[in-house]
Amino acid sequence: MKSLVAALRGERQAVPPLWLMRQAGRYLPEYRKLRETAGDFLTLCYTPDFATEVTLQPVRRFGLDAAILFSDILVVPHGLGMSLAFREGEGPVLEPLRSASELARLEPARLLDRLAPVYEAVRRVKRDLPAEAALIGFAGAPWTLATYMVEGGSSREFRRVKDWAYREPGSFVTLIERLTEATIAHLGAQIEAGAEAVQLFDSWAGVLPEAPFRAFVIEPTRRIVAALKARFPEVPLIGFPRGAGLLYPDYVATTGVAAVALDQHVPLSAAQAMQRQCPVQGNLDPLLLVLGGAAMDEAARTILAALRQGPFIFNLGHGIVPETPPAHVARLVELVRG
Amino acid sequence: MKSLVAALRGERQAVPPLWLMRQAGRYLPEYRKLRETAGDFLTLCYTPDFATEVTLQPVRRFGLDAAILFSDILVVPHGLGMSLAFREGEGPVLEPLRSASELARLEPARLLDRLAPVYEAVRRVKRDLPAEAALIGFAGAPWTLATYMVEGGSSREFRRVKDWAYREPGSFVTLIERLTEATIAHLGAQIEAGAEAVQLFDSWAGVLPEAPFRAFVIEPTRRIVAALKARFPEVPLIGFPRGAGLLYPDYVATTGVAAVALDQHVPLSAAQAMQRQCPVQGNLDPLLLVLGGAAMDEAARTILAALRQGPFIFNLGHGIVPETPPAHVARLVELVRG
Repeated sequence: MKSLVAALRGERQAVPPLWLMRQAGRYLPEYRKLRETAGDFLTLCYTPDFATEVTLQPVRRFGLDAAILFSDILVVPHGLGMSLAFREGEGPVLEPLRSASELARLEPARLLDRLAPVYEAVRRVKRDLPAEAALIGFAGAPWTLATYMVEGGSSREFRRVKDWAYREPGSFVTLIERLTEATIAHLGAQIEAGAEAVQLFDSWAGVLPEAPFRAFVIEPTRRIVAALKARFPEVPLIGFPRGAGLLYPDYVATTGVAAVALDQHVPLSAAQAMQRQCPVQGNLDPLLLVLGGAAMDEAARTILAALRQGPFIFNLGHGIVPETPPAHVARLVELVRG
Repeated sequence: MKSLVAALRGERQAVPPLWLMRQAGRYLPEYRKLRETAGDFLTLCYTPDFATEVTLQPVRRFGLDAAILFSDILVVPHGLGMSLAFREGEGPVLEPLRSASELARLEPARLLDRLAPVYEAVRRVKRDLPAEAALIGFAGAPWTLATYMVEGGSSREFRRVKDWAYREPGSFVTLIERLTEATIAHLGAQIEAGAEAVQLFDSWAGVLPEAPFRAFVIEPTRRIVAALKARFPEVPLIGFPRGAGLLYPDYVATTGVAAVALDQHVPLSAAQAMQRQCPVQGNLDPLLLVLGGAAMDEAARTILAALRQGPFIFNLGHGIVPETPPAHVARLVELVRG
């Protein structure tokens, strides 16, 4: 069995499997070169040749234990019919969806057709991937997708989406439920196309206080996990409620995720406690991968020492940033492989 | 004894004392009116007449249990000799301090003289405050001050300050130690001028992983608490490591703070666990105070039900935002007083 899949099933690996969030991307010269001659970001997500090639680049260069599909969490709102554009230096721009009356704009029946090129890329990556590397599919979790859809893009304060969620929780739950169904369909289609594990990115889980966190993060995650387990009992789901802080242990205990991805703010004693419940993945600060040197080595060794006794996947606490020198990634791989 | 001070000393109050972070400020028409005819923000911080009047405004209007001095955490870097300006809509702008060689720019010997108008405002507020209300002084914690000083203002990613802290922890500790001394001096001077409690705002504590959190948040806080306890054993210090998440309990257990302020992300079960160690303060989401209505009432009642059995001060999880209707504050006071 591939090392990553074994670890996700709870089997401690003598050498922890290693992959890195955003491992396919702008920090790699071979990615930047391919982007020069290609179209805009969203078109690339829907171009199987491009998505396949850039998904494989970091696996070839560093010998990582997993490929994660090159795509974006916002293909799901786009596939549901929302307008979406990525503007250079500005991030994503969506036609915002601000109230219950606009829910009719979403077209769940067309989602899988629209995202067919994504699943085609999954099939091609699976075909071309080195035998020992596993293929990870992914999706944004409903709350995180809702933040982009309601705010119309990235946000600092999340005022509009929280306003709706707090003021009219009943209709907001309807939005969350539509996104829950879409997420199940999108992850299911990636698994059918060959993904051996999936990660659910709740990148903005950390902006919610306890009560809405339970309603809009934990509950939809629980439903997504249950639906996928019923259809694909062998395929593990990694939950990533980034920034959940003191709510991390509850997320692990109540959602049923096979494994949990930890951000860099989770202390190692808390990580060890969660590791008694399920495999853990994480959690080097991505800035340390930019800096490299003794600071990176020491922090990576501390994480390894704390977590390698149980089922563990080495990763960052958040995605690689574009300024990361590829040589630092190579050094990290060497260090983890020991 | 004033209700707030009694609660901070660990005595449960039948009616929990109540104050609100940023209770003096832009959401109040009487504040906006006074600002129209006055100078820029920093000048106002150094004008005892103005600072006194706006500090008292919310106490008069709502009958709150405490006044918190109208000032800013950045008066300490300014008092140490750094240039500082507040530009409308842009936030603070400082001439950044980027490396150990620039530490000589700081002039600790002149701090208390430069900040004399702040202490004069404390004396005037103390003189004019209603007898039952307590006066709270405050300071920014060293890590949070360092973020503004190194980044040259507000930040989203904290790259520069983390870069220095991670790459050269030795010289960064020197900066933190200078700020620790300055913070002790600034809080001490406020206490001598009449502050009955102080709050230490570590607004950006949450951006640090465990190891630097221990070095740059916990350790300086422990030293500040110890130094002030030695000089002013009767004056409680409220620690506010905003966003500390899973590191909150360690902060409570190891810094010696008299009480802890909780942000809105701390779940109530974790708040109850910390309340067995020390009085807790918090933690309504400020956005709920903007929305008001049933959502606010329900969330406030849930907090009260969970925490009023122990020593507790009702507050928000972060500062009041300018869009807050004053009528919602009045309603919250009514609800807490029950």
